[in-house]
Amino acid sequence: MRARRLHLSFLSTTTTISLTLTPHSLTQRRVHFRNFSSSQIMRTLCVDSLNPAILNVEYAVRGELAIRAEHYRHLLQRPNHGLPFDRVINSNIGNPQQKGLDQPPITWNRQIAALTEYPELIEKAKDLFPEDAVERAKELLEEVGSIGAYSHSQGVPLIRKSVADFIAERDGHPADPGHIFLTAGASAGVALLLSMLIAKPGKSGVLIPIPQYPLYTATLAQYNGVPVPYHLDEKSGWSTSPEHILEALEKAKSEGIDVRAVVVINPGNPTGSLLTPAIQKHIVQICNDHGLMLLADEVYQENLHYRDEYPFTSFKKILCEMGNQADVALASFHSTSKGVTGECGRRGGYFELVKVDDEVLAQIYKMASVGLCPPVPGQVAVDCMVRPPKRGSPSYLRWKAETDAIHTALATRTKTMVARLNSLPGMSCQSANGALYLYPRIELPPRVIEAAHKAGKKADTFYALALLDATGICAVSGSGFGQRGDEGNFRLTCLCSGVEEYVGKLEKFHREFMEKYS
Amino acid sequence: MRARRLHLSFLSTTTTISLTLTPHSLTQRRVHFRNFSSSQIMRTLCVDSLNPAILNVEYAVRGELAIRAEHYRHLLQRPNHGLPFDRVINSNIGNPQQKGLDQPPITWNRQIAALTEYPELIEKAKDLFPEDAVERAKELLEEVGSIGAYSHSQGVPLIRKSVADFIAERDGHPADPGHIFLTAGASAGVALLLSMLIAKPGKSGVLIPIPQYPLYTATLAQYNGVPVPYHLDEKSGWSTSPEHILEALEKAKSEGIDVRAVVVINPGNPTGSLLTPAIQKHIVQICNDHGLMLLADEVYQENLHYRDEYPFTSFKKILCEMGNQADVALASFHSTSKGVTGECGRRGGYFELVKVDDEVLAQIYKMASVGLCPPVPGQVAVDCMVRPPKRGSPSYLRWKAETDAIHTALATRTKTMVARLNSLPGMSCQSANGALYLYPRIELPPRVIEAAHKAGKKADTFYALALLDATGICAVSGSGFGQRGDEGNFRLTCLCSGVEEYVGKLEKFHREFMEKYS
Repeated sequence: MRARRLHLSFLSTTTTISLTLTPHSLTQRRVHFRNFSSSQIMRTLCVDSLNPAILNVEYAVRGELAIRAEHYRHLLQRPNHGLPFDRVINSNIGNPQQKGLDQPPITWNRQIAALTEYPELIEKAKDLFPEDAVERAKELLEEVGSIGAYSHSQGVPLIRKSVADFIAERDGHPADPGHIFLTAGASAGVALLLSMLIAKPGKSGVLIPIPQYPLYTATLAQYNGVPVPYHLDEKSGWSTSPEHILEALEKAKSEGIDVRAVVVINPGNPTGSLLTPAIQKHIVQICNDHGLMLLADEVYQENLHYRDEYPFTSFKKILCEMGNQADVALASFHSTSKGVTGECGRRGGYFELVKVDDEVLAQIYKMASVGLCPPVPGQVAVDCMVRPPKRGSPSYLRWKAETDAIHTALATRTKTMVARLNSLPGMSCQSANGALYLYPRIELPPRVIEAAHKAGKKADTFYALALLDATGICAVSGSGFGQRGDEGNFRLTCLCSGVEEYVGKLEKFHREFMEKYS
Repeated sequence: MRARRLHLSFLSTTTTISLTLTPHSLTQRRVHFRNFSSSQIMRTLCVDSLNPAILNVEYAVRGELAIRAEHYRHLLQRPNHGLPFDRVINSNIGNPQQKGLDQPPITWNRQIAALTEYPELIEKAKDLFPEDAVERAKELLEEVGSIGAYSHSQGVPLIRKSVADFIAERDGHPADPGHIFLTAGASAGVALLLSMLIAKPGKSGVLIPIPQYPLYTATLAQYNGVPVPYHLDEKSGWSTSPEHILEALEKAKSEGIDVRAVVVINPGNPTGSLLTPAIQKHIVQICNDHGLMLLADEVYQENLHYRDEYPFTSFKKILCEMGNQADVALASFHSTSKGVTGECGRRGGYFELVKVDDEVLAQIYKMASVGLCPPVPGQVAVDCMVRPPKRGSPSYLRWKAETDAIHTALATRTKTMVARLNSLPGMSCQSANGALYLYPRIELPPRVIEAAHKAGKKADTFYALALLDATGICAVSGSGFGQRGDEGNFRLTCLCSGVEEYVGKLEKFHREFMEKYS
């Protein structure tokens, strides 16, 4: 209850400051709404009358730490803010194009967006756009008519065809546009499929990695599904152990849980770990042997820091190559929010279903149609991502230079950060092969655990809040990813420009913090 | 089961034809996927293993009729299609910018979209954009940084402020940006709030109008909520009777249903009816007396055919003017998909909460944050809708001419259609004050009911399928909106250009149909 109230107080502060009300009028507003809260309303719509599954949802990436960071950002606009830093560094969320971060949009994507939004430009501003971008925009407009119309609920057929071609080219195995669903980011697809798999509230389970991206536990909580955690192995670079999956599965079964599916995030979030094909094959085999659906979160497939040595292998490819050995239903999720595209705000993504029968497809299509259609600008972003300019075409060189620069910056920053974090006392950080994050670990001195306990916080959150208060760096603590909290992990994104300033601040804070508590 | 299979077979046809496979290869593909469906997969992911609540969802607007229409659209691409029409007329969905329909996008909206998507245009194509559009784009970019970044989960603060100003101006009562949530169309907001109100699966109920927009029953089915139907009164122009609401409420209570809220659609969908302020006040009073939340679907507030005589009054205004008389929690939904904006594909919308306490707001914020953020291009569309060009500004005259033309075309078309439908034998049609639809009624001869029964269809769907087969006109039958089916209603949109051809075809079909069956 205490945590909820804290959450709340920050929300109010935020929304109030965005209204530029003073603390005085904030108090007034509260009093005002308190007056509304008669027993009548309380009965209808007090928090305790809400769906209890909703109350159980936790979502740390935008939780307490993020809300406090937002609060500081507003305070910083005042001349005498009294904070010991002059900007908030958002290291909490994989939001590449966020203000103050380092990843610009790809020109190709934005040119096609502008042309499809405002087709008059095709005639009137010919010299501002390369020929291939104009051709692509015309092709998309010919298909959709207007970007402002609802599309097919499953996504624009032409764009689903582009996705299928991209998958076929990537894997060397064909893909069927009829089995591809465009979505509002990968999250929407994950939520839809999880909601369908939870057949028995409180009984149907889904295996999820710990640490995990909290979308999974949040969505399972919302639909009364049971999260069945399997632990990743930090000491082996956060690798996935098929044995851990099997143990977790057997334990859940023995508790009467009907385990329906396994979630694998590859490359990993928050860990940045990349699975080997041998382990992927092992996981598919487990799914086959135990009748599990495989939910493969592959949204970071493009973010690879050592792509020549360690390329991405999709679960679709593994499954196809196992042939009749594996009869496993697979959903593979991809997104325009990550990779070099980084268009989070557009809400684009897709999932491909493999070995899923037509009756189930019809049910998924029906549910997609209740939501009418995924955002069309997001669908256009998907097309741009899976059909970049061809080598030799007018847009190719610019596109190549821009995407190379993003890959290089991310890889360089990641490597620098790993080295510097590992040189800090009491801190260790596994290197990451992919994704946008690092997930270092602090050996928390007993006095920190004690102080955190007194403050009513998990130890890792206690550390992350102290980091935020001292430096303005907003990270997410490991307990937000499903860890206990005393392991002392936290997630940093590798998207922030100015590594020198950023890591420098973190180093200074960390040394002082460890000194204080040891 | 039969209906589900039919659904399915159309889905397969559609997706296959979009692949331009021949019927032969379609068969092959099916055989191929049948091979995958071993007992192993069937156990994990056969339709009967899915969440039963999902199987119960029905969604007619994009159901059997729409799927058959899509099938015909593909057939028409063949030279010898053998169909008795040469185009499909989509009268089934309020999708103003759909191909072949009549509502162009507003230039103001698209210019700002293009400028925010591709800010290079601000410098490079100055002469193509009016100054006020450039200023607006700069203001939005200053706020969001990049349109490709996740925004605040509740929506961009500046845009929520624009919405609050719009509401205050509309109603003459202040609005709080902290109580406004931007959404991916109104549907996403409706689904979120309904999911929160269903505290007890199978027991928590929500009053919904019949006929209703099927989003409500679909979403209630998905979350195991109980739809509590109250019937609208066709003979009085589809007015809402507070007595019917009370009767339905009392009946549900007597059956042990915990009724949480009432949904009111104003102007009505599918009816086009506009509530009088007196009836609105009466409804608010019922909510007050019975502790119900009021969910006001006001997405058609801009679509009014007699705006001087019958203006729109929001429930927010009614509630404010009732003062202490009514302690009712209200959610009012609005959308960029309807009105003169018509940007369905962008997925923009918002809801405003009134008299909802801060703890509940915090829960809603948390759930919004699990979905990360509403699509930013949709949010920009909301800003354009609620902050159109000011009188005297460079964009004003074009904006005024474009929006006037849309209002006039829709009103004229609606009136023409009402008159012509009412002149048909056995057909009556209430006139509509607003929205995008007409909901005529056919006195179905007993022989139609009999023939429908034999065909395993509801009578109204039997009629609508015959209409589609004969003319290519795709409408939605009344049973799709929650009616029994033998009342003989169906919904037509008033968005199709070429009323002469369209209504002409309908008239010819109707006379022949009635002759055949009487």
